[in-house]
Amino acid sequence: MKRGAMTAVQTAIATDYERIFGPKKIAIVGVSTEGAGFGSGIFYALRAIGYSGEIFLVNPKGGTLQGEKIYTSVDEIPGTFDLAIIAVAARAVPSVLEACLRKGAAGAEIISSGFKELGTAEGIDLEDKIVRIAARGIRVIGPNCFGIYCPQSGLTVLPGPDLSRDSGPVGFSSQSGGMAVDFANTGKSIGLTFSKVISFGNGADLRETELLRYFGDDPQTGIVTMYIEGIQDGDDFFCALRSTARKKPVIVFKGGLSDAGARAVSSHTASMGGSRMIWQAIVRQANAIQVYDMSEMAQTALAFAMLPQHPCRQISVLGGGGALGVAAADAAESFGLQIPAFAPELAQQIDALLPKPGSSPGNPVDVANPFVLPEVLKKVLYLAAEDARIDLQIFVSLLSHYKNLAVKNGCALAQVMPYRELADDFKEVMRQTGKPVVIVLPNPRRGLDHLDVVAALTEARQVFIENGIAVFDDLTECLRAIGHVNAYYGGRAHE
Amino acid sequence: MKRGAMTAVQTAIATDYERIFGPKKIAIVGVSTEGAGFGSGIFYALRAIGYSGEIFLVNPKGGTLQGEKIYTSVDEIPGTFDLAIIAVAARAVPSVLEACLRKGAAGAEIISSGFKELGTAEGIDLEDKIVRIAARGIRVIGPNCFGIYCPQSGLTVLPGPDLSRDSGPVGFSSQSGGMAVDFANTGKSIGLTFSKVISFGNGADLRETELLRYFGDDPQTGIVTMYIEGIQDGDDFFCALRSTARKKPVIVFKGGLSDAGARAVSSHTASMGGSRMIWQAIVRQANAIQVYDMSEMAQTALAFAMLPQHPCRQISVLGGGGALGVAAADAAESFGLQIPAFAPELAQQIDALLPKPGSSPGNPVDVANPFVLPEVLKKVLYLAAEDARIDLQIFVSLLSHYKNLAVKNGCALAQVMPYRELADDFKEVMRQTGKPVVIVLPNPRRGLDHLDVVAALTEARQVFIENGIAVFDDLTECLRAIGHVNAYYGGRAHE
Repeated sequence: MKRGAMTAVQTAIATDYERIFGPKKIAIVGVSTEGAGFGSGIFYALRAIGYSGEIFLVNPKGGTLQGEKIYTSVDEIPGTFDLAIIAVAARAVPSVLEACLRKGAAGAEIISSGFKELGTAEGIDLEDKIVRIAARGIRVIGPNCFGIYCPQSGLTVLPGPDLSRDSGPVGFSSQSGGMAVDFANTGKSIGLTFSKVISFGNGADLRETELLRYFGDDPQTGIVTMYIEGIQDGDDFFCALRSTARKKPVIVFKGGLSDAGARAVSSHTASMGGSRMIWQAIVRQANAIQVYDMSEMAQTALAFAMLPQHPCRQISVLGGGGALGVAAADAAESFGLQIPAFAPELAQQIDALLPKPGSSPGNPVDVANPFVLPEVLKKVLYLAAEDARIDLQIFVSLLSHYKNLAVKNGCALAQVMPYRELADDFKEVMRQTGKPVVIVLPNPRRGLDHLDVVAALTEARQVFIENGIAVFDDLTECLRAIGHVNAYYGGRAHE
Repeated sequence: MKRGAMTAVQTAIATDYERIFGPKKIAIVGVSTEGAGFGSGIFYALRAIGYSGEIFLVNPKGGTLQGEKIYTSVDEIPGTFDLAIIAVAARAVPSVLEACLRKGAAGAEIISSGFKELGTAEGIDLEDKIVRIAARGIRVIGPNCFGIYCPQSGLTVLPGPDLSRDSGPVGFSSQSGGMAVDFANTGKSIGLTFSKVISFGNGADLRETELLRYFGDDPQTGIVTMYIEGIQDGDDFFCALRSTARKKPVIVFKGGLSDAGARAVSSHTASMGGSRMIWQAIVRQANAIQVYDMSEMAQTALAFAMLPQHPCRQISVLGGGGALGVAAADAAESFGLQIPAFAPELAQQIDALLPKPGSSPGNPVDVANPFVLPEVLKKVLYLAAEDARIDLQIFVSLLSHYKNLAVKNGCALAQVMPYRELADDFKEVMRQTGKPVVIVLPNPRRGLDHLDVVAALTEARQVFIENGIAVFDDLTECLRAIGHVNAYYGGRAHE
């Protein structure tokens, strides 16, 4: 596999990413016999997620953990292993890493903290030692990180026992471990699936630029996402960003763009931040996508994962809810979309299908009533798709209102909320018209007396996603994500 | 009660808001014997929410609905009534309104649509008729609206059967009916309580400016919120905004600030929009708070409802999660807050309490581990409060991580998630230190296998709110809301 740019101290030994991300044998160094601590946590998580390779446990005290032998040193492990997961005290890390190198491991995740991020002479010195050992032939993820989640191979980040085993197109590299876990969990909740999630912490060896190039070359990764606090080499990063964005979408979330944030970056992962203006310019020039929080990153990745690979600039909006048309128009203008008015004849045909009064047949189509039947909505979507200008259709659902109907009828919500019919109908519309349908599923009912609404909408979301229909919580966020997709493919077309 | 500015056609008859918002007797005109339609819907909703006054139903066909007699005309109703709820076809509205005026009703909600928002000559003419009848002594809410929600009197908007009967400080007037329902539901979910929510639709008679003055004078309303699509008289609105904001916070969400949005406003509620720049200037000069979506409006109202009535500019941040310190610093700078570093001695005392490694005792305090005991967090909050600069403390909770602990221990989530202890401890800290504590409760775990997490966090949120602790989903949103509170009370101080 292609190797990224080398830093000065690195040798030209090819990185064996296959062994790092798909290890047959793992050594966990620093498990505790009491079962507490990060080392034991990752052992528990690997078991829980169903990692099927061999695991060697190491602790100088020996003993057993959950029936598994604990070796007293790395050297004692029989034969070699592919990946080490190191969770010993910072001071002990260099000698453990050295032992892993001797054993022929391809890589090591160093979960331990207590390095450069402390700002102490000892921490900086320890991290320098890691860099030098890594350069002799073992690639390091970390230190001060949560490791690697790779659903295909059953690797998981810390704590991560409950992440999905479904693989998918999204690759994520993150300087923050918490962000890696949160993003993997968020993805699982909204229907994003991952090729790899890599928390690289201080990034003593492998870090943003090289991982960006890796994801660019990785055939399993179709969408690259990254949380960056600081970069090591701006020019090199920009080259990697530009070349990767020519192959696949790259979504960049940069923390520390404020002055105060830049100072915080330094104590979090010991990196240098950068000014907002420079970042925006760099990202735009590279035709990458800049996002401003984790939610936007997740929504944007979802849009890339589920929408066609070309701009969809003209849209229809169908549905109801608080100021639908006004919100749609405001958001569309902000994100470079158009909601073209239907021709009078088409509007008339749509109008004939809608309940009266209060509905509105233009574009947006306000159906006025939350209980309009799926078959009617289907007919409206078919009609709207006849307008050749329309690239994509959005349905803003008022499914949460079915709670009132269920209470009134004295029945369970699942009996009245027609999300399965909607999923079937919309899937058919997409197939027949060749135009994607996206659902916005807002839910203002979230209190203790509406947990059934939350549960039903969670089920509905899953059914929609299984049928290839992207779901967003909010219309403005949905249009923003589509705007990012358009900007990217529009930029590609001009290359 | 004080009356707002008069429009040209209105006479000087004093508005009896007491009778409109606290009606002893209501007439619902336009119920259907089949039980469908808006009139029957509002009858059902009033019964469900527990309105205890007298209700007269009207439909030319007569009959009964749920055992209740249906009068064939308004005139047939014995004696007078306070408020009419009108849900007949647009064409029939003027004569019904005329009959309500004759009967001595103080006001009428006109739910019906089919007026000025259609843009037709007939619609405009019908609305003009309403304006003229109103001017003769009956105040009109609507047409094309969802009515009034007033928990104290048991009035509710359409559909609204499940809104809270708890009264509170937030008054909301909304040009959009959907927004009124969504905001009332959102409020119920996050712990906002309302004095009145008024959906005024086309605003033929009572509308934004007069309702703003009403809320300014209303002793039950401490926080004024509004969703505006367009205003009738800019100068008059600005005067009302300035004078109301001198008495209490006014939070303004303006739809239609884009060119496309302004066009949509016209077809939604037949109002004129206005440019973004002008709006921002008007709102800022009046020391009101401009927000950009419903979520921000709700979060901001919550901050005003639960925080002290003075600026809290210097804050401590305690907790963990994805890039806590970096996100806090970025957001603090954006919203005019400071997160001052603790003195070395204080940091040292805090450090002694934190788990190692990975924690960080500065400000923000990164506790590194989701399972730090509430009593430890309490001690850290006490220490942090000793820094005289700190006005307010934020705890970013990782409670959702207890799911992993519950699974590992094979027990229910409620058994391990210590939110009751946290609520007790934090309440004590607030009382002893006199400094508010706010909780940020993010949850990236929302899928079908994590519905127990959603339920537990919903319960936790309610317990925190009951103990006077404001809860936000997201740190950046929390700091934005606090920034709005600071801007308002800072502005008041300079008057």
